[in-house]
Amino acid sequence: MFKVDLNSDLGESFGAYTLGMDAEILKFVSSANVACGYHAGDPLVMEVTVKLAKEGSVAVGAHPGFPDLMGFGRRNMVLSPKEVKSYVKYQLGALLAFTRGQGIPLQHCKPHGALYNMAAKDKAMAMAIAEAIRDVDDQIILLGLANSEMIEAGKEAGLRVASEVFADRAYQADGTLVPRSQPGAVIHDTKEAIARTVRMVKEGKVTAITGEEVPLSVNSICVHGDNPSALAFVESIRGTLIAEGVSIVPLAQIV
Amino acid sequence: MFKVDLNSDLGESFGAYTLGMDAEILKFVSSANVACGYHAGDPLVMEVTVKLAKEGSVAVGAHPGFPDLMGFGRRNMVLSPKEVKSYVKYQLGALLAFTRGQGIPLQHCKPHGALYNMAAKDKAMAMAIAEAIRDVDDQIILLGLANSEMIEAGKEAGLRVASEVFADRAYQADGTLVPRSQPGAVIHDTKEAIARTVRMVKEGKVTAITGEEVPLSVNSICVHGDNPSALAFVESIRGTLIAEGVSIVPLAQIV
Amino acid sequence: MFKVDLNSDLGESFGAYTLGMDAEILKFVSSANVACGYHAGDPLVMEVTVKLAKEGSVAVGAHPGFPDLMGFGRRNMVLSPKEVKSYVKYQLGALLAFTRGQGIPLQHCKPHGALYNMAAKDKAMAMAIAEAIRDVDDQIILLGLANSEMIEAGKEAGLRVASEVFADRAYQADGTLVPRSQPGAVIHDTKEAIARTVRMVKEGKVTAITGEEVPLSVNSICVHGDNPSALAFVESIRGTLIAEGVSIVPLAQIV
Amino acid sequence: MFKVDLNSDLGESFGAYTLGMDAEILKFVSSANVACGYHAGDPLVMEVTVKLAKEGSVAVGAHPGFPDLMGFGRRNMVLSPKEVKSYVKYQLGALLAFTRGQGIPLQHCKPHGALYNMAAKDKAMAMAIAEAIRDVDDQIILLGLANSEMIEAGKEAGLRVASEVFADRAYQADGTLVPRSQPGAVIHDTKEAIARTVRMVKEGKVTAITGEEVPLSVNSICVHGDNPSALAFVESIRGTLIAEGVSIVPLAQIV
Repeated sequence: MFKVDLNSDLGESFGAYTLGMDAEILKFVSSANVACGYHAGDPLVMEVTVKLAKEGSVAVGAHPGFPDLMGFGRRNMVLSPKEVKSYVKYQLGALLAFTRGQGIPLQHCKPHGALYNMAAKDKAMAMAIAEAIRDVDDQIILLGLANSEMIEAGKEAGLRVASEVFADRAYQADGTLVPRSQPGAVIHDTKEAIARTVRMVKEGKVTAITGEEVPLSVNSICVHGDNPSALAFVESIRGTLIAEGVSIVPLAQIV
Repeated sequence: MFKVDLNSDLGESFGAYTLGMDAEILKFVSSANVACGYHAGDPLVMEVTVKLAKEGSVAVGAHPGFPDLMGFGRRNMVLSPKEVKSYVKYQLGALLAFTRGQGIPLQHCKPHGALYNMAAKDKAMAMAIAEAIRDVDDQIILLGLANSEMIEAGKEAGLRVASEVFADRAYQADGTLVPRSQPGAVIHDTKEAIARTVRMVKEGKVTAITGEEVPLSVNSICVHGDNPSALAFVESIRGTLIAEGVSIVPLAQIV
Repeated sequence: MFKVDLNSDLGESFGAYTLGMDAEILKFVSSANVACGYHAGDPLVMEVTVKLAKEGSVAVGAHPGFPDLMGFGRRNMVLSPKEVKSYVKYQLGALLAFTRGQGIPLQHCKPHGALYNMAAKDKAMAMAIAEAIRDVDDQIILLGLANSEMIEAGKEAGLRVASEVFADRAYQADGTLVPRSQPGAVIHDTKEAIARTVRMVKEGKVTAITGEEVPLSVNSICVHGDNPSALAFVESIRGTLIAEGVSIVPLAQIV
Repeated sequence: MFKVDLNSDLGESFGAYTLGMDAEILKFVSSANVACGYHAGDPLVMEVTVKLAKEGSVAVGAHPGFPDLMGFGRRNMVLSPKEVKSYVKYQLGALLAFTRGQGIPLQHCKPHGALYNMAAKDKAMAMAIAEAIRDVDDQIILLGLANSEMIEAGKEAGLRVASEVFADRAYQADGTLVPRSQPGAVIHDTKEAIARTVRMVKEGKVTAITGEEVPLSVNSICVHGDNPSALAFVESIRGTLIAEGVSIVPLAQIV
């Protein structure tokens, strides 16, 4: 029996600013990464997002980011591991208040944006994130890029880890993503993206941009819900996976 | 056997800015109110403050405030109860990450500054705070001004409540504080302040500014540690209380 | 020859968050109130907004607000006049950098949200705003609510002042707005709103909710461009005014 | 006749947080770099700092930094040149409001912390800063590290530039600073530091850590006033320079 999680970033609105189509994407995903007030989100948004996720039977995870609201956490910041650890703990705890309020577990933690990208390659930063999670609650799953330093760090810290893949991104022979700056990094053909994803899930393999067959652990697929065509893609990939005999379930039922 | 708690605001530093003499005041108090990043404090400061408190066997509570770092949370803001509730939950959770990291309970929650003063008189705001606490963890004690709406709200929400008094403030006949804008609001004579405090603790009474004897529930005394003379006062009040047979113990051993 | 200004709030986007339909509303208004980074707006947004306004021959003014991004400057904050004065100066200067960069004058200053509402009734706060403007550049026009303390304060400070009215709001016999909390405060009939506005501009009079004829100085009409129907209303009111022989010109050509 | 400027960072307090000994250091320096609210400083602090500087006949410049109050602008952030340009304009303008309020010119602009260090080596970032200054007021002097990209960028942008040196830092043969991570980077001997500084000013030369004689343009010396021993050093270096026939004058009288 094949199982995979579909995760998406939610709760990215802030104050008077609305971002994303949270109510719609919640119909299709099994896990929600909820922004925690540093790069996006605020307490009112967190409160309502956690509530909506619970009502939709979608598992809730934290989506901590850099303290850079103006840059939406997408800009690299050179922080010490100590700073990263404390910042992630702060955000995990803040979200924990809302999951406790709803009586649901905080299922996972997936770093956001530049923090995610930097930690994928920087072991010290990845360890800081893993240790932050362990300090707050060692039952929280670390969701990170497949084959990245985050997965290694989570294992070393004794956490359950989950590997995520991207349906529309090309992979290198070592199992890492082709950087966006390179040609072919993004797969624009929807059918091809879905076919690749089904194969990743069912066979644990992806064809690298250089032709090699690359083994890939796939626990979760990252999808987006910030515009109607993205939503249509999610509905399509979900439908195809189910038709192929794959169950869409939250991370906690997989790792 | 008389028991009372001594509480003080800690962890009010931020980034490169240092405020307070936390290491010193921790020697004298039994409970620490730790700022949670809204009006003061940041994750690194929270991390080290909770650690220091644990090492000094001082119980840790949250000190949530308005989202107004520039005003240190001392300026009234007109927020809805819904906003207050979510903001307090956010801050409680953030601190909870650090107390969990140290393996200690989050003993209490005492609102800060303008939030404290407004909630003392505004039942809806007080209820929002009490409900925020209950949602996060109903074992957290609500520490509020004696005879204020906060105490009522905490009881209604089913929480344990603790009443705090001020050694150097005059009281009105109804058990509330004489506003600072009025003459005689602050008691400048140290000996008188200490004598009044001992009486409040041992007899549960204070003489109002208008001469009446006012019954007062006293679970905790608020003290400050932001300058050497404040520290000397704390040392003196602590010494006198102990000499008078009063035990200084954390809130959780009292209410 | 009748002349009036149409003003609208612009540049309210922030970071990854987009708000308003700035490019569209710029086709209809003569003056833009640009957010200055406290309640909304950021330097990139200010840069592009000022550039767009210049290209559309729309005069630029500052729209300073409370330091409350999370509340979009709509929540009352109890600040001292000294704080208000410095905060307004800061925001005026910040916008001045961008108008200088485009080689255009900073035409006016209109306070935003809760700052606007509080200053309309609070003379000390209104004076603080007027003095901030005078300190930065005494050629900047203070745009405020007709018949409010802001207009008085601007005159006392020796500034040029401009009175704004609202097309869709009912007035009281003393020339102030009927509070939104009261029935009849908002005029929902578009035709009636436009007819009232034309009369305000051409006759300097409005019929109060209690029936009296109220004299009203009208230099500018506040319009909104945050959704398609608001835009349609602006186009309609603009067209009617022009058809009635009223010129739509920036404030600086009026006061 | 030898002339040099002594500059120091001021106005770094924020809200309830006090940093630096501004009143004391103002007695010794000729130019003040005033924080603009991004990495430090707030409008009230800027208001009082500019006033104090004027009263002390000290010239005022802007000290823009990264939008990172929690990190005091000391952490590298990967921003685009466009972002840097807008952020610097915003901060320059904000300070301009206060210098205009005091009727004094905004003499110079010296980037702060990580922005300074990054721009010293990154031409695109340095050009963004120079263009920001030129857009706001092309009479503002760009004060940057001697022999750095900032000096080149300022010249290319058509600005007056001023080179600053550090009394207590060792130099490399190419005229750049020995990185703090290397041994010998900081000169701890006060007398040696002062002697080197006098020679830099009077002969335009410094002996590199590798023994070479390095020519160095010296318009300003960076000094600190955040503790009593730093103040004593400033008083000493100032006294020695004057005794050696060097006039201490603001930048605008030098470049």
